[in-house]
Amino acid sequence: MDIPLPYVKPLPPFLAQRYHGWKATTYSQNKAWFRKLATEGQHPRAMIISCCDSRVHVASIFGADAGEFFIHRNVANLVPAFAPDGDHHGTSAAIEYAVTALHVSHIIVLGHSQCGGVQGCLDMCTGNAPELEQSSSFVGRWMDILRPGYERVRDKYAPEDMAAALEKESVMVALENLMTFPFVNEAVESDMLTLHGLWTDIGEGTLECLDSKSREFFPV
Amino acid sequence: MDIPLPYVKPLPPFLAQRYHGWKATTYSQNKAWFRKLATEGQHPRAMIISCCDSRVHVASIFGADAGEFFIHRNVANLVPAFAPDGDHHGTSAAIEYAVTALHVSHIIVLGHSQCGGVQGCLDMCTGNAPELEQSSSFVGRWMDILRPGYERVRDKYAPEDMAAALEKESVMVALENLMTFPFVNEAVESDMLTLHGLWTDIGEGTLECLDSKSREFFPV
Amino acid sequence: MDIPLPYVKPLPPFLAQRYHGWKATTYSQNKAWFRKLATEGQHPRAMIISCCDSRVHVASIFGADAGEFFIHRNVANLVPAFAPDGDHHGTSAAIEYAVTALHVSHIIVLGHSQCGGVQGCLDMCTGNAPELEQSSSFVGRWMDILRPGYERVRDKYAPEDMAAALEKESVMVALENLMTFPFVNEAVESDMLTLHGLWTDIGEGTLECLDSKSREFFPV
Amino acid sequence: MDIPLPYVKPLPPFLAQRYHGWKATTYSQNKAWFRKLATEGQHPRAMIISCCDSRVHVASIFGADAGEFFIHRNVANLVPAFAPDGDHHGTSAAIEYAVTALHVSHIIVLGHSQCGGVQGCLDMCTGNAPELEQSSSFVGRWMDILRPGYERVRDKYAPEDMAAALEKESVMVALENLMTFPFVNEAVESDMLTLHGLWTDIGEGTLECLDSKSREFFPV
Repeated sequence: MDIPLPYVKPLPPFLAQRYHGWKATTYSQNKAWFRKLATEGQHPRAMIISCCDSRVHVASIFGADAGEFFIHRNVANLVPAFAPDGDHHGTSAAIEYAVTALHVSHIIVLGHSQCGGVQGCLDMCTGNAPELEQSSSFVGRWMDILRPGYERVRDKYAPEDMAAALEKESVMVALENLMTFPFVNEAVESDMLTLHGLWTDIGEGTLECLDSKSREFFPV
Repeated sequence: MDIPLPYVKPLPPFLAQRYHGWKATTYSQNKAWFRKLATEGQHPRAMIISCCDSRVHVASIFGADAGEFFIHRNVANLVPAFAPDGDHHGTSAAIEYAVTALHVSHIIVLGHSQCGGVQGCLDMCTGNAPELEQSSSFVGRWMDILRPGYERVRDKYAPEDMAAALEKESVMVALENLMTFPFVNEAVESDMLTLHGLWTDIGEGTLECLDSKSREFFPV
Repeated sequence: MDIPLPYVKPLPPFLAQRYHGWKATTYSQNKAWFRKLATEGQHPRAMIISCCDSRVHVASIFGADAGEFFIHRNVANLVPAFAPDGDHHGTSAAIEYAVTALHVSHIIVLGHSQCGGVQGCLDMCTGNAPELEQSSSFVGRWMDILRPGYERVRDKYAPEDMAAALEKESVMVALENLMTFPFVNEAVESDMLTLHGLWTDIGEGTLECLDSKSREFFPV
Repeated sequence: MDIPLPYVKPLPPFLAQRYHGWKATTYSQNKAWFRKLATEGQHPRAMIISCCDSRVHVASIFGADAGEFFIHRNVANLVPAFAPDGDHHGTSAAIEYAVTALHVSHIIVLGHSQCGGVQGCLDMCTGNAPELEQSSSFVGRWMDILRPGYERVRDKYAPEDMAAALEKESVMVALENLMTFPFVNEAVESDMLTLHGLWTDIGEGTLECLDSKSREFFPV
């Protein structure tokens, strides 16, 4: 009666081998910590919203271990505006869980250079990617969230600076949209939550932090 | 003219300190690799869909470095069914980008023990969490995706085994929904993509792999 | 007085982590075997000559463990002809050591599809890569070894079949040159050594074996 | 007209059997990855220069899979100095291809204990292997590359420590010679390439990393 899943395959052997290595070292040397995490639950200090991009390694940059950060990763580290319409909202669900169930003290939005999602948004907004304008394009509709950001940078930057400017706008749009969630707004107002915006250059290894007044990013 | 973002704060010093340590060691000793990632773009082998949970550390378990895995993390590692309705679908956008733009060879769905999202679904489906039934609950509406999974396990397990059973169902529901995406189905059919299901026990450090025929999970 | 090596960097952390995993599992579970290999020396059954290409994984294809194969890997799995001119000959040294010191019973030459070195030779021989003709090109001069192979296939194959034909010629040229080494010839003549030619298609996973009479390759 | 190769034999059945096992499991479960490697080409992160010795298994130590490392293996993991004399230089060709065509980010030289090639060099330099001094000895002429290393260690170590010291010198000589190649030097100077030196003890399973300042090796 159970339907088989013929398209599901075993784990590639090199990953199984690496897992066994992790089990025999990192896990076995920190068993007490993993046991505690299992029995007492997670108490992460911060939520991090970053990109799915394989080159962005937030745990590595911040020397993080299991239990420290509640991490949501989506294309271009975006947050849609508050919209309680009964539909499936993965990002909004993650934020709601982090703020109302886990009571994280920080939400950090981390943007990055050479972001393929942001580049797609730029191509779409400049008429160079008609396929992303189609209603059937999930990437296109997701990147619609960043359109207001494009409107803000379109007349301000030379073409060669536009992508980085829009990557930084993606962080600011995410932060602005975060504040449209009543539970986020309330936690911020009552000093239970602070928000942070970061942007990292993959090739240079630099990290820049958003300044709230100037809307500019400065090296950490 | 630019609207300030008064709720945005500087990076906490301990994170700035850790970042500077990473920059002076890991980054600086591997600068060539990061430069190459920046100039030649990412070529990740696999997409991994896992939970936001701070205790799940997929890069660590698999000894992965920057550039290896395209990682999407949401609550309970779920995938909604294909629904091209022009709305914002973060998970669907991430899958579309991984399969059609990056041409990843594997999608690995990784579930885990003590999953707060899955527990919420269980509470909701058993009438113990009316607040999650409200249309304004993002977590509740997100966990609706797992309701068909609950229907399949509800009469099969003792109460104390129910949570783990539903965590494993969340992996299978995600894989089944993945196959409703035409571009996933096509890539699987043409041998360009393989799917894998895993479940890890946080406290025990075990890793189990989904068997396609029996719908059961066996230790790796 | 010792000259420092400022360009030498520490091992990237992800490789250190993977090594520790290997040490705690594969090594520790097979310590007796590694100890024996160390104290009694290596007694490999065969020498394998294959390409440096990262996609060719001879130990994996043949389920080999430490101690089984003496493996020499160079660009395009080539063997130069016997030339005892007192110069540094890495490939000839490896063959001499395998045959006269280790007394291997087999030498297996393994070619493969999509070989960049063979493609370079083809480009060079057809006048499409003048830079490889320069005396300063190490790749060009190394691929000179395969020029006689090109002469044999140039009028026999359609352009789209030429690369695979030349990849297979690279195996045959290597085997012919092997026989110009007196110690190889003598070992073969006295039934102490057999030679084998293989070619693998990376994408299809097929393995073909050279037939001595027809000079054709047939699936294993 | 085609010259037969009477000395070429079919593949031994045990290897054919193992290949068929690999094809039905590892290959078939990862077909998508092999297809991608074939169509999109290799993008290895690092070049590894190690010894042909059957006991050195770099892919295993580092949990590597097809596509990760461009691997050159010769006797005693040596690199000759830059010498563009129009002759066949297999090692130099491999390095040129890795750096100028593949743009690898790392070159890792891996030495090891109980190295037969290094022992031969030691015997030769101490007058105990006159046969290796002959111009017709490929191994002897190849090990000439390590003579400057012997000069550096000859008065510094007790006889029982000499072999390990010279094995480590072979790594340093290789790294020093690597820097004589203009394209290596340039890539290192422009932060596109980093070099690493390692030495592994086969029996103990230890791995030591070269420290650039002290020229000593420390456990990873």
